[in-house]
Amino acid sequence: MAPSWVKNLTPSAPQGSELLAKERAQSNLSVEQLSEFLHTKDVLQRQDAILKILKSEKAFDKSQNYFSGRETRFTNALARAKRLQQLAAKHGWTQDEYQVATELISEPGPYGLHASMFLITLRDQGTSEQHQLFLHKAERYEYIGCYAQTELGHGSNVRGLETTATWNAEDKTFTIHTPQLTAAKWWIGSLGRTANHAVVMAQLIIDGKSHGPHPFVVQIRDLRSHQPLENVHVGDIGPKFGYNTMDNGFLLFNRVKIPHANMLAKFSSVDPQSGKYIKPPSASLVYGTLTWVRSTIVLQSGGVLARGVTIAIRYCAVRRQFQDRDAKSLDAGENQVLNYTMVQVRLLPLLAATFALHFTGRGMMALYQENQKKMAGDVGKAGQPGRGPSPEELFPSTDLLADLHATSCGLKALASTTAAEGLEICRRACGGHGYSSFSGIGSWYADYLPTTTWEGDNYMLTQQVARYLLKSARAVLEGDTSDNDTTRILRTFLARRDMGAAFDVLGRDEDIVAAFAWRTSFLTFESLKHRDEDKNSWNNLLVDFWRLSTAHSQYLIVKNFYDALRSDTVSQELNQGTVVLMHKLFRLHALHTLEREASEFFSSAAVTVRQIQLARTKAVMNLLEEIRPHAVRLVDAWRFPDWQLDSSLGRYDGKVYEDLFHRASEMNPLNAITIDPYPGNDVLVKKDDRDAFKSKL
Amino acid sequence: MAPSWVKNLTPSAPQGSELLAKERAQSNLSVEQLSEFLHTKDVLQRQDAILKILKSEKAFDKSQNYFSGRETRFTNALARAKRLQQLAAKHGWTQDEYQVATELISEPGPYGLHASMFLITLRDQGTSEQHQLFLHKAERYEYIGCYAQTELGHGSNVRGLETTATWNAEDKTFTIHTPQLTAAKWWIGSLGRTANHAVVMAQLIIDGKSHGPHPFVVQIRDLRSHQPLENVHVGDIGPKFGYNTMDNGFLLFNRVKIPHANMLAKFSSVDPQSGKYIKPPSASLVYGTLTWVRSTIVLQSGGVLARGVTIAIRYCAVRRQFQDRDAKSLDAGENQVLNYTMVQVRLLPLLAATFALHFTGRGMMALYQENQKKMAGDVGKAGQPGRGPSPEELFPSTDLLADLHATSCGLKALASTTAAEGLEICRRACGGHGYSSFSGIGSWYADYLPTTTWEGDNYMLTQQVARYLLKSARAVLEGDTSDNDTTRILRTFLARRDMGAAFDVLGRDEDIVAAFAWRTSFLTFESLKHRDEDKNSWNNLLVDFWRLSTAHSQYLIVKNFYDALRSDTVSQELNQGTVVLMHKLFRLHALHTLEREASEFFSSAAVTVRQIQLARTKAVMNLLEEIRPHAVRLVDAWRFPDWQLDSSLGRYDGKVYEDLFHRASEMNPLNAITIDPYPGNDVLVKKDDRDAFKSKL
Repeated sequence: MAPSWVKNLTPSAPQGSELLAKERAQSNLSVEQLSEFLHTKDVLQRQDAILKILKSEKAFDKSQNYFSGRETRFTNALARAKRLQQLAAKHGWTQDEYQVATELISEPGPYGLHASMFLITLRDQGTSEQHQLFLHKAERYEYIGCYAQTELGHGSNVRGLETTATWNAEDKTFTIHTPQLTAAKWWIGSLGRTANHAVVMAQLIIDGKSHGPHPFVVQIRDLRSHQPLENVHVGDIGPKFGYNTMDNGFLLFNRVKIPHANMLAKFSSVDPQSGKYIKPPSASLVYGTLTWVRSTIVLQSGGVLARGVTIAIRYCAVRRQFQDRDAKSLDAGENQVLNYTMVQVRLLPLLAATFALHFTGRGMMALYQENQKKMAGDVGKAGQPGRGPSPEELFPSTDLLADLHATSCGLKALASTTAAEGLEICRRACGGHGYSSFSGIGSWYADYLPTTTWEGDNYMLTQQVARYLLKSARAVLEGDTSDNDTTRILRTFLARRDMGAAFDVLGRDEDIVAAFAWRTSFLTFESLKHRDEDKNSWNNLLVDFWRLSTAHSQYLIVKNFYDALRSDTVSQELNQGTVVLMHKLFRLHALHTLEREASEFFSSAAVTVRQIQLARTKAVMNLLEEIRPHAVRLVDAWRFPDWQLDSSLGRYDGKVYEDLFHRASEMNPLNAITIDPYPGNDVLVKKDDRDAFKSKL
Repeated sequence: MAPSWVKNLTPSAPQGSELLAKERAQSNLSVEQLSEFLHTKDVLQRQDAILKILKSEKAFDKSQNYFSGRETRFTNALARAKRLQQLAAKHGWTQDEYQVATELISEPGPYGLHASMFLITLRDQGTSEQHQLFLHKAERYEYIGCYAQTELGHGSNVRGLETTATWNAEDKTFTIHTPQLTAAKWWIGSLGRTANHAVVMAQLIIDGKSHGPHPFVVQIRDLRSHQPLENVHVGDIGPKFGYNTMDNGFLLFNRVKIPHANMLAKFSSVDPQSGKYIKPPSASLVYGTLTWVRSTIVLQSGGVLARGVTIAIRYCAVRRQFQDRDAKSLDAGENQVLNYTMVQVRLLPLLAATFALHFTGRGMMALYQENQKKMAGDVGKAGQPGRGPSPEELFPSTDLLADLHATSCGLKALASTTAAEGLEICRRACGGHGYSSFSGIGSWYADYLPTTTWEGDNYMLTQQVARYLLKSARAVLEGDTSDNDTTRILRTFLARRDMGAAFDVLGRDEDIVAAFAWRTSFLTFESLKHRDEDKNSWNNLLVDFWRLSTAHSQYLIVKNFYDALRSDTVSQELNQGTVVLMHKLFRLHALHTLEREASEFFSSAAVTVRQIQLARTKAVMNLLEEIRPHAVRLVDAWRFPDWQLDSSLGRYDGKVYEDLFHRASEMNPLNAITIDPYPGNDVLVKKDDRDAFKSKL
């Protein structure tokens, strides 16, 4: 505890609160209007109400989060998960409201995979009989489950899973078995300590023949003692770079029998009488869920990144270091770090990216919902009693679905990489204090990182995009007339290829979009040539494909941002000043991307060397200067409550140094131990004991 | 604990050990020869001997490192630091041997800053009287100290420090004081719990006039009770992203008086009689130490990165995922991940970078030592009894020193950024398991990260490089004939500028070096024009300066690598096959860098668009293929013992899955607790109690 002479100290002037007040005074951006545009008024009110409830609950006290070890963090997270369930029941929260609460709490919780993948899989892939057997108990948290797909030896390659589910005709059961160590289920969220059930993805084997991975419901722990059942070996896989409030687990089976009813049979099943395998109606159905999950990742990425940007921009407005080298007076105070162009060029393009990703996520979700509607209509027409619709009936034109699938793959990869790497840039822009846990960025970054690997590794996914683009390019060359955005940009490129491009990227926003489209098309036809004419191996082209996917996804983000700004919603809901500022953010995002990827824009002849030079030295630098005064208000519009950020550096009121000091001096449990510092003695740790040991000095 | 049916499981074939054996069999690189070339035979033997001692000591058992919370990790680290001191005394270890031991232990320890900065500062900046007073006790660990420079509000800007040391003429003392909260010393290693003394950097104030920051020795804790002295507030600053075995601390003073003798007076001092300030002989002396520290960072960066590369390459040779898409047979097994070009293009250029950085560090150190000799000679000539040499005498030509200073700034920034970001690339290349603590990369990366901030923030440093290059360019334009590498490349550029360049980067290695020199020179004169002719503000040019510094440092690395390969040492100590392979690594490093920075090579007209395309699609891809078979042996040559790596994925024997499983199932303390999973009940944690609770189900 600090003595009184310490308590009277204040930071040297000007105070952080004054600096942030000045920042907010120098911009007339309407934070409220932009917030409501980003989140809707409803959501913001809901967030305020839920925040009030959470803050008043002892279970959600965050003050020891950064200090606690893994065991405490996990058991606290479990206590929070339980309390959250109780509150949800008490207040009758919807799924959306529950989601708001978990975002405010901002840590993965042990019910996480139960509440998402376990329930969803039971609901979507179970028959109504299976809903009776499993789903309703799961919804009441009597069965607590997880989704056990990944194995020790198999992540991305689902077809390669080694766990087996062998059909026993004699007693109409399945035997779930782990034949090798590499078949151990691994990384399964909520499994390590929490779940008593699992949906296990296993190779279905009938009469020695494998029919590929299918989902089986398996009880793994006793409902009363919570001990593993016989022939089940289950536990937590150990500490991770982040995500340590979650009990990711392992799971092995030694020939465990389960009833026929435990194979989730909505799409494929085994006929219990004949033992015959009944095929699913369409493999594409699976695409649906994955596409939704990936679209959600894209939608969230803007907000994920915005947390780091909020913290870094507020802190860089409070932190002052050195005088401006050209300053006239030697008495000029130190300069706000945010005034340095080297800091601006790192943070402001990320600020622009938060909006770009947000609008792209919205566009992506709209496309997904449009497709769902279309499919529902088609299923309605095609569905006949007694049999499932055929794939062709389900998707009379697979065009939109294929486009959506490829788009979601590419954007998931680019958006999550942008958010993850952007967070680290924000952390470093905070200088030394960015390294303190109290910055609030490190743990958020570490928890977010797996997003670059799950739901499709970001590098693997780029192959899906390239495959789709090559297929589209072949179709266009063969005269396909289908009209979607991809075929349109490819056709435009072909038509103008020989004339060359002359995009006015510095003058016209639509030309920026066209230049990105041109580059994608150029790279597509180049890759197609390498594959189809030069007969390059697929493996040899992976690096090209990754570039192509990145280029295409960057185009999609630029286009979505541009389209959003031209939409009626924008002109109706935002005032003119905000719209102008948004256009500047659009240009900053696009031109900064263009400049970073300059060599591809050159080689495709989309722009000239001179244009890139001007973009870099003039356009981007001017935009930084124009956006700079609005930076703090722009991050304010994301509306993260301090309680959610849990960051000394990102405090709304700018009391950065007071908060860092308070946490270190008054809350840090390490300061309650006294050690013996001398090499000849024992460590002799004493807790809170002021005259504990005699040194041998 | 795993049941017996689990213990009998093995990974599916082929085993990791077989795969690594195959890798090692397919290359004839002499690991031993290359190891000895990198480290010298002496060092390797010393390492083996010390490793044996450490492994036999209980204090250094690493098995719980990844599981322990901060308090345990810190107290264990302290116990290790003490034991290490005892062992050093017992075995009579030299400073180098002590260093080898700490590298094998691979965690920051609480004596770290005592053993480095505290002792060095006392030695280098104390008079012989002060050595009697402080240094000898410090060497015997009776005084345990730290170096307190950084403050809560001031990192990079040392001149802005707020702590004061006011001269009291009446009793010939100094008053050390913390006038504001922002003046609190912060981030100080070994201070939080361990040190009883500090070297405090404080503004020296005499008669109300400040003479800038100077070093003062201040006792902060009682030597017996280890409690803070009166009017001293000291403690640990709390948890960090990494470095949690170190007690970085804070320190505040409430007008604490210290004797005149406690101001370290080797260079500047206060005359106790007159109270007059005696100036240091040369400000450049400080450069010396900083240059040495930065050179050390450059020298270490190759090895730092090599740890991650070793782990990732071994694991990617063991991990198999998917079949090759062009594989003829459907029965072909899954492909080693290292066979995919998308993985190669991420890892092999980093493998090349480890050698590039290593050779650059060596070159840098040689330059430093050459300069030290030169200075010693000059000092010898100039030194006269009774007065210090003047700056002019010390540095008759400041040329070499200025070059060395700029070089060390630029290379420190680039080398530490390359190592830090490279480690994260390695971690991600390990896929999902890279996220497990058992990968061994995450903690190593997290502990290394501060290197990008300390000893000069990597972005700040680039200004020093630019300032030097602009100064050199002005000199060259004004006809300066001094002959160092920088002025040479600038002159070459000027002479050929109007004719343009025509570098055969794909055919001749020396042309690669020349192309990098050309780009640096082009950017230098471009920046000079912006500053001197266009009168751009310094702030407006910071981004250009950062690019310029990066370009220059990349040139230096390419040049050092190239020069090293042409040296006699290489041809004498390495066989022809190894030399050829090293040349391939040189080309991979250089061409991969060239391709990533393509736009600057275009715009400076150092290369053509066509050359870049060929570099990317042909040269780099061919080099990846040629180097691939030697990848495992190349990382073996870095010779990291398994004990040092502490990584499941990077095991020399390839038993990746067995090790991951063993740590999770047999060593993870979280698996010793049983929880109640139901929302309506308490968390009810029971440790090792198998029938502990009744659920309310």
